[in-house]
Amino acid sequence: MSNTTAAGVPFQTIGIIGCGLIGCSIAAALKMRGFRGRIVGCGRAGANLETAAARGHIDAAETDLAKGARQCDLVVVCTPVDHIVHDVRLAADACRTGTLITDAGSVKQTICGPLSHGIPPSVTFIGSHPIAGSEKQGCAHASPDLFENRVCVVAPDPATPRHEVDRLGAFWRSLGLAVVEMSPEDHDRALAQTSHVPHVVAAALAASLTAQNQGLTAGGFQDTTRIAAGDPELWTAILLANAEAVADGARGFSECLAALVRAVETRDKRALVELLRSAKTNRDAATFRNEPPA
Amino acid sequence: MSNTTAAGVPFQTIGIIGCGLIGCSIAAALKMRGFRGRIVGCGRAGANLETAAARGHIDAAETDLAKGARQCDLVVVCTPVDHIVHDVRLAADACRTGTLITDAGSVKQTICGPLSHGIPPSVTFIGSHPIAGSEKQGCAHASPDLFENRVCVVAPDPATPRHEVDRLGAFWRSLGLAVVEMSPEDHDRALAQTSHVPHVVAAALAASLTAQNQGLTAGGFQDTTRIAAGDPELWTAILLANAEAVADGARGFSECLAALVRAVETRDKRALVELLRSAKTNRDAATFRNEPPA
Repeated sequence: MSNTTAAGVPFQTIGIIGCGLIGCSIAAALKMRGFRGRIVGCGRAGANLETAAARGHIDAAETDLAKGARQCDLVVVCTPVDHIVHDVRLAADACRTGTLITDAGSVKQTICGPLSHGIPPSVTFIGSHPIAGSEKQGCAHASPDLFENRVCVVAPDPATPRHEVDRLGAFWRSLGLAVVEMSPEDHDRALAQTSHVPHVVAAALAASLTAQNQGLTAGGFQDTTRIAAGDPELWTAILLANAEAVADGARGFSECLAALVRAVETRDKRALVELLRSAKTNRDAATFRNEPPA
Repeated sequence: MSNTTAAGVPFQTIGIIGCGLIGCSIAAALKMRGFRGRIVGCGRAGANLETAAARGHIDAAETDLAKGARQCDLVVVCTPVDHIVHDVRLAADACRTGTLITDAGSVKQTICGPLSHGIPPSVTFIGSHPIAGSEKQGCAHASPDLFENRVCVVAPDPATPRHEVDRLGAFWRSLGLAVVEMSPEDHDRALAQTSHVPHVVAAALAASLTAQNQGLTAGGFQDTTRIAAGDPELWTAILLANAEAVADGARGFSECLAALVRAVETRDKRALVELLRSAKTNRDAATFRNEPPA
Protein backbone atom coordinates (compact mmCIF):
# COMPACT_ATOMS: atom_id res chain seq x y z
CA MET A 1 0.00 0.00 0.00
CA SER A 2 1.31 3.49 -0.81
CA ASN A 3 1.79 5.53 2.33
CA THR A 4 -0.85 8.17 1.65
CA THR A 5 -3.81 7.85 4.00
CA ALA A 6 -7.37 9.09 3.88
CA ALA A 7 -7.19 10.39 7.45
CA GLY A 8 -6.66 13.97 6.32
CA VAL A 9 -8.98 14.21 3.29
CA PRO A 10 -10.70 17.61 3.36
CA PHE A 11 -14.26 16.21 3.60
CA GLN A 12 -16.45 15.19 6.55
CA THR A 13 -19.25 13.29 4.81
CA ILE A 14 -18.73 11.56 1.47
CA GLY A 15 -21.66 10.36 -0.62
CA ILE A 16 -21.24 7.41 -2.96
CA ILE A 17 -24.01 7.39 -5.58
CA GLY A 18 -24.12 3.90 -7.10
CA CYS A 19 -22.84 1.15 -4.80
CA GLY A 20 -21.45 -1.25 -7.43
CA LEU A 21 -17.87 -2.40 -7.94
CA ILE A 22 -16.37 1.10 -8.31
CA GLY A 23 -18.46 2.91 -5.71
CA CYS A 24 -17.91 0.25 -3.05
CA SER A 25 -14.20 -0.04 -3.86
CA ILE A 26 -13.89 3.72 -3.24
CA ALA A 27 -15.75 3.38 0.06
CA ALA A 28 -13.67 0.34 1.07
CA ALA A 29 -10.43 2.15 0.20
CA LEU A 30 -11.48 5.17 2.28
CA LYS A 31 -12.17 2.93 5.29
CA MET A 32 -8.96 0.94 4.90
CA ARG A 33 -6.92 4.13 4.63
CA GLY A 34 -8.28 5.63 7.83
CA PHE A 35 -10.95 8.09 6.63
CA ARG A 36 -12.40 9.58 9.82
CA GLY A 37 -15.66 10.94 8.41
CA ARG A 38 -18.95 9.37 7.40
CA ILE A 39 -19.78 7.55 4.14
CA VAL A 40 -23.34 7.62 2.83
CA GLY A 41 -24.09 5.04 0.15
CA CYS A 42 -26.96 5.87 -2.24
CA GLY A 43 -28.59 3.51 -4.70
CA ARG A 44 -31.57 1.39 -5.53
CA ALA A 45 -32.75 -0.92 -2.76
CA GLY A 46 -31.17 -4.30 -3.45
CA ALA A 47 -28.19 -6.61 -3.10
CA ASN A 48 -25.48 -3.99 -3.75
CA LEU A 49 -26.72 -1.55 -1.12
CA GLU A 50 -27.32 -4.36 1.39
CA THR A 51 -23.84 -5.84 0.85
CA ALA A 52 -22.24 -2.40 1.12
CA ALA A 53 -23.88 -1.85 4.51
CA ALA A 54 -23.34 -5.42 5.74
CA ARG A 55 -19.61 -5.31 4.92
CA GLY A 56 -19.20 -1.92 6.56
CA HIS A 57 -18.09 -0.14 3.37
CA ILE A 58 -20.73 2.54 4.09
CA ASP A 59 -22.06 4.03 7.34
CA ALA A 60 -25.56 4.70 6.04
CA ALA A 61 -27.64 3.40 3.12
CA GLU A 62 -29.99 5.79 1.36
CA THR A 63 -32.36 4.98 -1.51
CA ASP A 64 -33.35 8.64 -1.97
CA LEU A 65 -30.45 10.22 -3.89
CA ALA A 66 -31.39 13.82 -2.98
CA LYS A 67 -31.72 12.95 0.70
CA GLY A 68 -28.31 11.27 0.62
CA ALA A 69 -26.56 14.05 -1.30
CA ARG A 70 -27.90 16.71 1.08
CA GLN A 71 -25.79 15.24 3.93
CA CYS A 72 -22.46 15.37 2.07
CA ASP A 73 -19.65 17.80 1.31
CA LEU A 74 -18.28 15.47 -1.39
CA VAL A 75 -20.46 13.39 -3.71
CA VAL A 76 -18.93 10.76 -6.02
CA VAL A 77 -21.32 9.57 -8.73
CA CYS A 78 -20.41 5.97 -9.68
CA THR A 79 -23.44 4.98 -11.77
CA PRO A 80 -23.22 3.71 -15.41
CA VAL A 81 -21.93 6.38 -17.84
CA ASP A 82 -25.35 6.97 -19.40
CA HIS A 83 -26.87 7.77 -15.98
CA ILE A 84 -24.16 10.09 -14.65
CA VAL A 85 -25.37 13.44 -16.07
CA HIS A 86 -28.86 12.81 -14.69
CA ASP A 87 -27.57 11.73 -11.28
CA VAL A 88 -25.11 14.65 -10.97
CA ARG A 89 -27.95 17.11 -11.71
CA LEU A 90 -30.17 15.49 -9.09
CA ALA A 91 -27.38 15.63 -6.50
CA ALA A 92 -26.41 19.22 -7.43
CA ASP A 93 -29.97 20.45 -6.96
CA ALA A 94 -30.13 18.85 -3.49
CA CYS A 95 -26.64 19.66 -2.15
CA ARG A 96 -25.67 22.27 0.41
CA THR A 97 -23.55 25.30 -0.58
CA GLY A 98 -19.88 24.43 -1.05
CA THR A 99 -20.39 20.77 -1.93
CA LEU A 100 -18.02 19.26 -4.48
CA ILE A 101 -19.43 16.67 -6.91
CA THR A 102 -17.40 14.35 -9.11
CA ASP A 103 -17.94 11.10 -11.03
CA ALA A 104 -16.00 7.96 -11.95
CA GLY A 105 -17.16 7.49 -15.54
CA SER A 106 -14.97 5.94 -18.26
CA VAL A 107 -15.82 8.71 -20.76
CA LYS A 108 -15.62 12.42 -20.12
CA GLN A 109 -16.93 14.50 -23.07
CA THR A 110 -20.53 13.29 -22.91
CA ILE A 111 -20.48 13.93 -19.15
CA CYS A 112 -18.43 17.12 -18.72
CA GLY A 113 -19.95 18.77 -21.82
CA PRO A 114 -23.59 18.82 -20.66
CA LEU A 115 -22.56 19.49 -17.04
CA SER A 116 -20.59 22.64 -17.94
CA HIS A 117 -23.91 24.46 -17.53
CA GLY A 118 -27.02 24.12 -15.40
CA ILE A 119 -25.21 23.30 -12.14
CA PRO A 120 -26.19 25.69 -9.30
CA PRO A 121 -23.32 28.17 -8.66
CA SER A 122 -23.23 27.16 -4.97
CA VAL A 123 -21.81 23.70 -5.83
CA THR A 124 -18.95 22.56 -8.10
CA PHE A 125 -18.83 19.62 -10.51
CA ILE A 126 -15.49 18.30 -11.80
CA GLY A 127 -15.32 15.14 -13.93
CA SER A 128 -12.98 12.32 -12.86
CA HIS A 129 -11.97 8.88 -14.10
CA PRO A 130 -10.06 6.60 -11.76
CA ILE A 131 -8.59 4.19 -14.37
CA ALA A 132 -9.18 0.81 -12.74
CA GLY A 133 -11.83 -1.86 -13.01
CA SER A 134 -12.63 -5.50 -13.32
CA GLU A 135 -14.68 -7.74 -15.56
CA LYS A 136 -16.64 -8.62 -12.43
CA GLN A 137 -19.55 -6.51 -11.26
CA GLY A 138 -21.18 -5.44 -8.06
CA CYS A 139 -20.34 -4.60 -4.48
CA ALA A 140 -19.55 -8.28 -3.79
CA HIS A 141 -16.35 -7.92 -5.88
CA ALA A 142 -15.31 -4.54 -4.45
CA SER A 143 -11.73 -4.27 -3.23
CA PRO A 144 -9.96 -1.59 -1.19
CA ASP A 145 -6.86 -2.21 -3.35
CA LEU A 146 -8.54 -1.59 -6.72
CA PHE A 147 -7.01 1.90 -7.08
CA GLU A 148 -3.62 1.11 -5.57
CA ASN A 149 -0.97 2.72 -7.81
CA ARG A 150 -3.44 3.43 -10.61
CA VAL A 151 -3.97 6.77 -12.37
CA CYS A 152 -6.99 9.06 -11.98
CA VAL A 153 -7.73 11.57 -14.73
CA VAL A 154 -9.34 14.79 -13.52
CA ALA A 155 -10.94 16.95 -16.23
CA PRO A 156 -11.81 20.37 -14.78
CA ASP A 157 -13.49 23.11 -16.77
CA PRO A 158 -11.07 26.06 -17.33
CA ALA A 159 -13.40 28.17 -15.13
CA THR A 160 -13.24 25.78 -12.15
CA PRO A 161 -11.59 27.38 -9.07
CA ARG A 162 -8.11 25.96 -8.52
CA HIS A 163 -8.71 25.16 -4.83
CA GLU A 164 -11.63 22.88 -5.80
CA VAL A 165 -9.40 20.99 -8.27
CA ASP A 166 -6.82 20.68 -5.49
CA ARG A 167 -9.38 19.33 -2.99
CA LEU A 168 -10.49 16.74 -5.54
CA GLY A 169 -6.89 15.76 -6.31
CA ALA A 170 -6.20 15.30 -2.59
CA PHE A 171 -9.22 12.98 -2.37
CA TRP A 172 -8.11 10.70 -5.22
CA ARG A 173 -4.51 10.67 -4.03
CA SER A 174 -5.69 9.54 -0.60
CA LEU A 175 -6.98 6.33 -2.28
CA GLY A 176 -3.54 5.53 -3.70
CA LEU A 177 -4.07 7.02 -7.17
CA ALA A 178 -1.75 9.32 -9.09
CA VAL A 179 -3.70 12.30 -10.46
CA VAL A 180 -3.36 13.60 -14.04
CA GLU A 181 -5.23 16.64 -15.39
CA MET A 182 -6.53 16.37 -18.96
CA SER A 183 -9.26 17.85 -21.12
CA PRO A 184 -12.32 15.63 -21.72
CA GLU A 185 -11.35 15.41 -25.41
CA ASP A 186 -7.79 14.25 -24.71
CA HIS A 187 -9.07 11.79 -22.10
CA ASP A 188 -11.56 10.20 -24.48
CA ARG A 189 -9.05 9.83 -27.32
CA ALA A 190 -6.48 8.27 -24.97
CA LEU A 191 -8.95 5.91 -23.29
CA ALA A 192 -10.28 4.75 -26.66
CA GLN A 193 -6.78 3.44 -27.29
CA THR A 194 -5.93 2.09 -23.83
CA SER A 195 -9.31 0.66 -22.81
CA HIS A 196 -12.26 0.91 -25.23
CA VAL A 197 -10.59 -0.54 -28.34
CA PRO A 198 -8.98 -3.34 -26.27
CA HIS A 199 -12.48 -4.16 -25.03
CA VAL A 200 -13.91 -4.39 -28.55
CA VAL A 201 -10.90 -6.46 -29.67
CA ALA A 202 -11.26 -8.87 -26.74
CA ALA A 203 -14.97 -9.22 -27.54
CA ALA A 204 -14.21 -9.96 -31.20
CA LEU A 205 -11.68 -12.64 -30.17
CA ALA A 206 -14.17 -14.26 -27.82
CA ALA A 207 -16.93 -14.05 -30.45
CA SER A 208 -14.77 -15.74 -33.07
CA LEU A 209 -14.06 -18.80 -30.89
CA THR A 210 -15.97 -21.78 -32.25
CA ALA A 211 -17.69 -24.18 -29.87
CA GLN A 212 -15.49 -27.21 -30.63
CA ASN A 213 -12.34 -25.26 -29.69
CA GLN A 214 -13.55 -24.03 -26.31
CA GLY A 215 -11.65 -26.78 -24.51
CA LEU A 216 -8.35 -26.04 -26.26
CA THR A 217 -7.76 -22.60 -24.76
CA ALA A 218 -5.15 -21.78 -22.15
CA GLY A 219 -3.65 -18.77 -20.38
CA GLY A 220 -3.11 -16.71 -23.53
CA PHE A 221 -6.75 -16.82 -24.65
CA GLN A 222 -7.90 -16.44 -21.06
CA ASP A 223 -5.92 -13.22 -20.51
CA THR A 224 -6.58 -11.75 -23.93
CA THR A 225 -10.37 -12.15 -23.61
CA ARG A 226 -10.80 -11.54 -19.88
CA ILE A 227 -12.47 -8.14 -20.29
CA ALA A 228 -14.96 -9.61 -22.78
CA ALA A 229 -16.64 -11.12 -19.71
CA GLY A 230 -17.61 -7.60 -18.62
CA ASP A 231 -21.21 -6.40 -18.51
CA PRO A 232 -22.58 -5.93 -22.08
CA GLU A 233 -24.96 -3.09 -21.10
CA LEU A 234 -22.32 -1.08 -19.23
CA TRP A 235 -19.86 -1.44 -22.10
CA THR A 236 -22.41 -0.60 -24.78
CA ALA A 237 -23.00 2.72 -22.99
CA ILE A 238 -19.25 3.42 -22.75
CA LEU A 239 -18.53 2.55 -26.40
CA LEU A 240 -21.47 4.57 -27.74
CA ALA A 241 -20.45 7.57 -25.61
CA ASN A 242 -17.02 7.54 -27.30
CA ALA A 243 -18.02 6.16 -30.68
CA GLU A 244 -15.89 8.31 -32.95
CA ALA A 245 -12.64 7.82 -31.02
CA VAL A 246 -13.34 4.07 -30.72
CA ALA A 247 -13.87 3.74 -34.49
CA ASP A 248 -10.66 5.76 -35.11
CA GLY A 249 -8.71 3.63 -32.63
CA ALA A 250 -10.05 0.43 -34.17
CA ARG A 251 -8.74 1.59 -37.57
CA GLY A 252 -5.27 2.14 -36.09
CA PHE A 253 -5.39 -1.30 -34.53
CA SER A 254 -6.59 -2.94 -37.77
CA GLU A 255 -3.68 -1.42 -39.71
CA CYS A 256 -1.21 -2.92 -37.22
CA LEU A 257 -2.99 -6.27 -37.44
CA ALA A 258 -2.99 -6.20 -41.24
CA ALA A 259 0.78 -5.60 -41.29
CA LEU A 260 1.33 -8.59 -39.01
CA VAL A 261 -0.97 -10.88 -41.01
CA ARG A 262 0.69 -9.77 -44.25
CA ALA A 263 4.10 -10.74 -42.84
CA VAL A 264 2.68 -14.14 -41.82
CA GLU A 265 1.03 -14.75 -45.21
CA THR A 266 4.10 -13.78 -47.21
CA ARG A 267 6.35 -15.77 -44.82
CA ASP A 268 8.43 -12.61 -44.30
CA LYS A 269 10.39 -13.75 -41.27
CA ARG A 270 12.43 -10.58 -40.87
CA ALA A 271 9.37 -8.28 -41.00
CA LEU A 272 7.45 -10.49 -38.56
CA VAL A 273 10.25 -10.56 -35.98
CA GLU A 274 10.51 -6.76 -36.26
CA LEU A 275 6.76 -6.21 -35.80
CA LEU A 276 6.59 -8.57 -32.81
CA ARG A 277 9.68 -6.95 -31.32
CA SER A 278 8.23 -3.45 -31.58
CA ALA A 279 4.93 -4.69 -30.06
CA LYS A 280 6.88 -6.20 -27.16
CA THR A 281 8.86 -2.99 -26.64
CA ASN A 282 5.59 -1.00 -26.48
CA ARG A 283 3.98 -3.49 -24.14
CA ASP A 284 6.97 -3.59 -21.82
CA ALA A 285 7.03 0.23 -21.72
CA ALA A 286 3.37 0.62 -20.73
CA THR A 287 3.04 1.62 -17.10
CA PHE A 288 1.55 -1.12 -14.96
CA ARG A 289 2.55 0.29 -11.66
CA ASN A 290 1.11 -2.54 -9.64
CA GLU A 291 2.78 -5.31 -11.65
CA PRO A 292 6.39 -6.23 -10.97
CA PRO A 293 8.50 -5.98 -14.16
CA ALA A 294 8.70 -9.25 -16.15
CA MET B 1 -3.12 -30.39 -7.37
CA SER B 2 -4.97 -33.17 -9.15
CA ASN B 3 -4.37 -36.50 -7.44
CA THR B 4 -2.50 -38.22 -10.24
CA THR B 5 1.18 -38.72 -9.40
CA ALA B 6 4.28 -39.38 -11.47
CA ALA B 7 5.39 -42.22 -9.19
CA GLY B 8 4.14 -44.87 -11.58
CA VAL B 9 5.03 -43.42 -14.99
CA PRO B 10 6.29 -46.24 -17.22
CA PHE B 11 9.78 -44.77 -17.74
CA GLN B 12 13.04 -45.01 -15.80
CA THR B 13 15.11 -42.23 -17.36
CA ILE B 14 13.50 -39.20 -18.97
CA GLY B 15 15.48 -36.86 -21.19
CA ILE B 16 14.44 -33.21 -21.49
CA ILE B 17 15.95 -31.67 -24.62
CA GLY B 18 15.84 -27.87 -24.22
CA CYS B 19 15.80 -26.69 -20.61
CA GLY B 20 13.74 -23.50 -21.00
CA LEU B 21 10.39 -22.65 -19.47
CA ILE B 22 8.51 -25.68 -20.82
CA GLY B 23 11.28 -28.28 -20.43
CA CYS B 24 12.08 -27.27 -16.88
CA SER B 25 8.39 -27.03 -15.93
CA ILE B 26 7.98 -30.65 -17.11
CA ALA B 27 11.01 -31.70 -15.05
CA ALA B 28 9.81 -29.73 -12.01
CA ALA B 29 6.32 -31.26 -12.29
CA LEU B 30 7.80 -34.78 -12.49
CA LYS B 31 9.83 -34.15 -9.32
CA MET B 32 6.93 -32.56 -7.44
CA ARG B 33 4.66 -35.45 -8.37
CA GLY B 34 7.02 -38.12 -7.08
CA PHE B 35 8.74 -39.41 -10.24
CA ARG B 36 11.18 -42.05 -8.97
CA GLY B 37 13.47 -42.23 -12.00
CA ARG B 38 16.24 -40.04 -13.34
CA ILE B 39 15.89 -36.83 -15.38
CA VAL B 40 18.63 -35.89 -17.84
CA GLY B 41 18.53 -32.27 -19.04
CA CYS B 42 20.11 -31.59 -22.42
CA GLY B 43 20.88 -28.19 -23.87
CA ARG B 44 23.50 -25.62 -24.69
CA ALA B 45 25.89 -24.77 -21.86
CA GLY B 46 24.51 -21.66 -20.19
CA ALA B 47 22.16 -20.13 -17.66
CA ASN B 48 19.16 -22.41 -18.37
CA LEU B 49 21.07 -25.66 -17.93
CA GLU B 50 22.87 -24.31 -14.84
CA THR B 51 19.64 -23.14 -13.23
CA ALA B 52 17.94 -26.45 -14.02
CA ALA B 53 20.70 -28.35 -12.23
CA ALA B 54 21.06 -25.85 -9.36
CA ARG B 55 17.32 -25.98 -8.61
CA GLY B 56 17.24 -29.74 -8.76
CA HIS B 57 14.82 -29.94 -11.69
CA ILE B 58 17.23 -32.34 -13.42
CA ASP B 59 19.57 -35.01 -12.07
CA ALA B 60 22.21 -34.61 -14.78
CA ALA B 61 23.08 -31.87 -17.28
CA GLU B 62 24.32 -32.87 -20.72
CA THR B 63 25.44 -30.54 -23.52
CA ASP B 64 25.79 -33.42 -26.01
CA LEU B 65 22.24 -34.23 -27.14
CA ALA B 66 23.12 -37.69 -28.49
CA LYS B 67 24.92 -38.61 -25.30
CA GLY B 68 21.94 -37.48 -23.24
CA ALA B 69 19.33 -39.21 -25.39
CA ARG B 70 21.23 -42.52 -25.28
CA GLN B 71 20.56 -42.81 -21.53
CA CYS B 72 16.77 -42.42 -21.76
CA ASP B 73 13.66 -44.48 -22.42
CA LEU B 74 11.57 -41.32 -22.92
CA VAL B 75 12.86 -38.18 -24.62
CA VAL B 76 10.80 -34.95 -24.60
CA VAL B 77 12.05 -32.38 -27.11
CA CYS B 78 11.20 -28.89 -25.79
CA THR B 79 13.27 -26.72 -28.16
CA PRO B 80 11.74 -23.92 -30.34
CA VAL B 81 9.35 -25.25 -33.02
CA ASP B 82 11.82 -24.65 -35.86
CA HIS B 83 14.47 -26.82 -34.14
CA ILE B 84 12.29 -29.75 -33.12
CA VAL B 85 12.50 -31.88 -36.30
CA HIS B 86 16.29 -31.60 -36.28
CA ASP B 87 16.56 -32.41 -32.57
CA VAL B 88 14.16 -35.37 -32.75
CA ARG B 89 16.22 -36.88 -35.60
CA LEU B 90 19.44 -36.43 -33.63
CA ALA B 91 17.89 -38.06 -30.57
CA ALA B 92 16.28 -40.89 -32.62
CA ASP B 93 19.60 -41.80 -34.21
CA ALA B 94 21.26 -42.01 -30.79
CA CYS B 95 18.52 -43.72 -28.75
CA ARG B 96 18.37 -47.32 -27.57
CA THR B 97 15.78 -49.72 -28.97
CA GLY B 98 12.31 -49.13 -27.52
CA THR B 99 12.77 -45.48 -26.67
CA LEU B 100 9.75 -43.21 -27.05
CA ILE B 101 10.33 -39.66 -28.29
CA THR B 102 7.85 -36.81 -28.15
CA ASP B 103 7.91 -33.00 -28.32
CA ALA B 104 6.09 -30.03 -26.80
CA GLY B 105 5.79 -27.80 -29.87
CA SER B 106 2.86 -25.41 -30.45
CA VAL B 107 2.40 -26.57 -34.05
CA LYS B 108 2.11 -30.15 -35.21
CA GLN B 109 1.92 -30.43 -39.04
CA THR B 110 5.41 -29.05 -39.75
CA ILE B 111 6.77 -31.40 -37.06
CA CYS B 112 4.75 -34.61 -37.44
CA GLY B 113 4.76 -34.41 -41.27
CA PRO B 114 8.55 -34.61 -41.78
CA LEU B 115 8.96 -37.01 -38.84
CA SER B 116 6.50 -39.56 -40.28
CA HIS B 117 9.53 -40.99 -42.11
CA GLY B 118 13.24 -41.34 -41.47
CA ILE B 119 12.95 -42.36 -37.80
CA PRO B 120 14.74 -45.70 -37.11
CA PRO B 121 12.12 -48.48 -36.64
CA SER B 122 13.57 -49.32 -33.22
CA VAL B 123 12.25 -46.06 -31.71
CA THR B 124 8.87 -44.30 -31.84
CA PHE B 125 8.10 -40.62 -32.29
CA ILE B 126 4.66 -39.20 -31.37
CA GLY B 127 3.98 -35.44 -31.49
CA SER B 128 2.53 -33.74 -28.41
CA HIS B 129 1.46 -30.26 -27.38
CA PRO B 130 0.85 -29.56 -23.70
CA ILE B 131 -1.27 -26.38 -24.03
CA ALA B 132 0.24 -24.13 -21.40
CA GLY B 133 2.83 -21.40 -21.36
CA SER B 134 3.80 -17.98 -20.20
CA GLU B 135 5.00 -14.73 -21.71
CA LYS B 136 8.12 -15.23 -19.59
CA GLN B 137 11.03 -17.33 -20.80
CA GLY B 138 13.69 -19.58 -19.40
CA CYS B 139 14.22 -22.10 -16.64
CA ALA B 140 14.14 -19.28 -14.07
CA HIS B 141 10.36 -18.96 -14.63
CA ALA B 142 9.62 -22.69 -14.70
CA SER B 143 6.80 -23.88 -12.47
CA PRO B 144 5.73 -27.38 -11.42
CA ASP B 145 2.10 -26.14 -11.64
CA LEU B 146 2.25 -24.93 -15.24
CA PHE B 147 0.37 -27.97 -16.58
CA GLU B 148 -2.06 -28.36 -13.70
CA ASN B 149 -5.52 -28.99 -15.19
CA ARG B 150 -4.44 -28.05 -18.71
CA VAL B 151 -4.97 -30.06 -21.89
CA CYS B 152 -2.28 -31.94 -23.84
CA VAL B 153 -2.93 -32.76 -27.48
CA VAL B 154 -1.30 -35.99 -28.68
CA ALA B 155 -1.10 -36.42 -32.46
CA PRO B 156 -0.08 -40.00 -33.29
CA ASP B 157 0.41 -41.27 -36.80
CA PRO B 158 -2.29 -43.86 -37.72
CA ALA B 159 0.51 -46.47 -37.89
CA THR B 160 1.75 -45.81 -34.32
CA PRO B 161 1.29 -48.84 -32.02
CA ARG B 162 -1.53 -48.24 -29.54
CA HIS B 163 0.54 -49.20 -26.50
CA GLU B 164 3.04 -46.43 -27.32
CA VAL B 165 0.22 -43.86 -27.49
CA ASP B 166 -1.02 -45.17 -24.14
CA ARG B 167 2.43 -44.91 -22.53
CA LEU B 168 2.71 -41.32 -23.75
CA GLY B 169 -0.81 -40.49 -22.49
CA ALA B 170 0.08 -41.91 -19.07
CA PHE B 171 3.15 -39.66 -18.98
CA TRP B 172 1.24 -36.43 -19.72
CA ARG B 173 -1.59 -37.35 -17.36
CA SER B 174 0.96 -37.85 -14.58
CA LEU B 175 1.78 -34.12 -14.88
CA GLY B 176 -1.85 -33.11 -14.29
CA LEU B 177 -2.85 -32.73 -17.95
CA ALA B 178 -5.96 -34.09 -19.66
CA VAL B 179 -5.01 -35.85 -22.90
CA VAL B 180 -6.85 -35.34 -26.20
CA GLU B 181 -5.98 -37.16 -29.44
CA MET B 182 -6.16 -35.11 -32.63
CA SER B 183 -4.66 -35.10 -36.10
CA PRO B 184 -1.87 -32.55 -36.71
CA GLU B 185 -4.17 -30.72 -39.16
CA ASP B 186 -7.04 -30.40 -36.67
CA HIS B 187 -4.62 -29.36 -33.94
CA ASP B 188 -3.11 -26.58 -36.03
CA ARG B 189 -6.48 -25.19 -37.13
CA ALA B 190 -7.76 -25.19 -33.53
CA LEU B 191 -4.62 -23.67 -32.05
CA ALA B 192 -4.61 -20.91 -34.68
CA GLN B 193 -7.93 -19.83 -33.19
CA THR B 194 -7.22 -20.38 -29.49
CA SER B 195 -3.58 -19.27 -29.33
CA HIS B 196 -1.85 -18.03 -32.50
CA VAL B 197 -4.45 -15.46 -33.64
CA PRO B 198 -4.84 -14.15 -30.04
CA HIS B 199 -1.07 -13.67 -30.04
CA VAL B 200 -1.11 -11.65 -33.26
CA VAL B 201 -4.09 -9.64 -31.99
CA ALA B 202 -2.37 -8.86 -28.68
CA ALA B 203 0.75 -7.80 -30.59
CA ALA B 204 -1.30 -5.49 -32.85
CA LEU B 205 -2.94 -3.90 -29.78
CA ALA B 206 0.42 -3.34 -28.12
CA ALA B 207 1.91 -2.00 -31.38
CA SER B 208 -0.93 0.51 -31.82
CA LEU B 209 -0.39 2.08 -28.36
CA THR B 210 1.15 5.53 -28.79
CA ALA B 211 3.92 6.67 -26.44
CA GLN B 212 1.93 9.46 -24.73
CA ASN B 213 -0.79 7.00 -23.69
CA GLN B 214 1.51 4.43 -22.09
CA GLY B 215 0.75 5.80 -18.60
CA LEU B 216 -3.03 5.65 -19.06
CA THR B 217 -3.36 1.87 -19.26
CA ALA B 218 -4.81 -0.36 -16.55
CA GLY B 219 -5.80 -3.97 -16.00
CA GLY B 220 -7.75 -4.32 -19.26
CA PHE B 221 -4.85 -3.35 -21.51
CA GLN B 222 -2.44 -5.25 -19.29
CA ASP B 223 -4.38 -8.53 -19.60
CA THR B 224 -5.25 -8.14 -23.26
CA THR B 225 -1.63 -7.56 -24.32
CA ARG B 226 0.16 -9.81 -21.82
CA ILE B 227 1.19 -12.42 -24.40
CA ALA B 228 2.64 -9.69 -26.64
CA ALA B 229 5.54 -9.63 -24.15
CA GLY B 230 6.48 -13.14 -25.34
CA ASP B 231 9.70 -13.87 -27.22
CA PRO B 232 9.51 -12.44 -30.81
CA GLU B 233 11.78 -15.13 -32.29
CA LEU B 234 9.89 -18.04 -30.73
CA TRP B 235 6.57 -16.65 -31.89
CA THR B 236 7.76 -15.85 -35.40
CA ALA B 237 8.68 -19.52 -35.78
CA ILE B 238 5.26 -20.65 -34.47
CA LEU B 239 3.27 -18.24 -36.66
CA LEU B 240 5.24 -19.08 -39.82
CA ALA B 241 4.83 -22.81 -39.15
CA ASN B 242 1.03 -22.36 -39.14
CA ALA B 243 0.77 -19.43 -41.56
CA GLU B 244 -2.30 -20.47 -43.53
CA ALA B 245 -4.46 -21.28 -40.51
CA VAL B 246 -3.33 -18.08 -38.77
CA ALA B 247 -4.28 -15.96 -41.79
CA ASP B 248 -7.66 -17.75 -41.98
CA GLY B 249 -8.26 -17.27 -38.26
CA ALA B 250 -7.32 -13.60 -38.48
CA ARG B 251 -9.94 -13.16 -41.20
CA GLY B 252 -12.62 -14.70 -38.94
CA PHE B 253 -11.55 -12.41 -36.12
CA SER B 254 -11.55 -9.33 -38.36
CA GLU B 255 -15.12 -10.04 -39.47
CA CYS B 256 -16.26 -10.16 -35.84
CA LEU B 257 -14.37 -6.94 -35.12
CA ALA B 258 -15.86 -5.19 -38.16
CA ALA B 259 -19.38 -6.08 -37.01
CA LEU B 260 -18.69 -4.60 -33.57
CA VAL B 261 -17.13 -1.41 -34.97
CA ARG B 262 -20.03 -1.02 -37.41
CA ALA B 263 -22.49 -1.18 -34.51
CA VAL B 264 -20.44 1.45 -32.64
CA GLU B 265 -20.19 3.76 -35.68
CA THR B 266 -23.89 3.55 -36.52
CA ARG B 267 -24.78 3.93 -32.82
CA ASP B 268 -26.81 0.71 -33.08
CA LYS B 269 -27.31 0.08 -29.38
CA ARG B 270 -29.36 -3.09 -29.77
CA ALA B 271 -26.86 -4.73 -32.14
CA LEU B 272 -23.92 -3.75 -29.93
CA VAL B 273 -25.47 -5.21 -26.76
CA GLU B 274 -26.22 -8.42 -28.67
CA LEU B 275 -22.67 -8.75 -30.03
CA LEU B 276 -21.08 -8.07 -26.64
CA ARG B 277 -23.50 -10.51 -25.02
CA SER B 278 -22.65 -13.31 -27.44
CA ALA B 279 -18.92 -12.61 -26.93
CA LYS B 280 -19.41 -12.85 -23.17
CA THR B 281 -21.34 -16.12 -23.52
CA ASN B 282 -18.50 -17.58 -25.60
CA ARG B 283 -15.84 -16.36 -23.20
CA ASP B 284 -17.68 -17.67 -20.15
CA ALA B 285 -18.08 -21.07 -21.87
CA ALA B 286 -14.38 -21.51 -22.69
CA THR B 287 -12.76 -24.06 -20.42
CA PHE B 288 -10.27 -22.52 -18.03
CA ARG B 289 -10.03 -25.42 -15.70
CA ASN B 290 -7.63 -23.74 -13.32
CA GLU B 291 -9.66 -20.55 -12.96
CA PRO B 292 -12.61 -20.43 -10.59
CA PRO B 293 -15.81 -19.36 -12.41
CA ALA B 294 -16.43 -15.58 -12.40
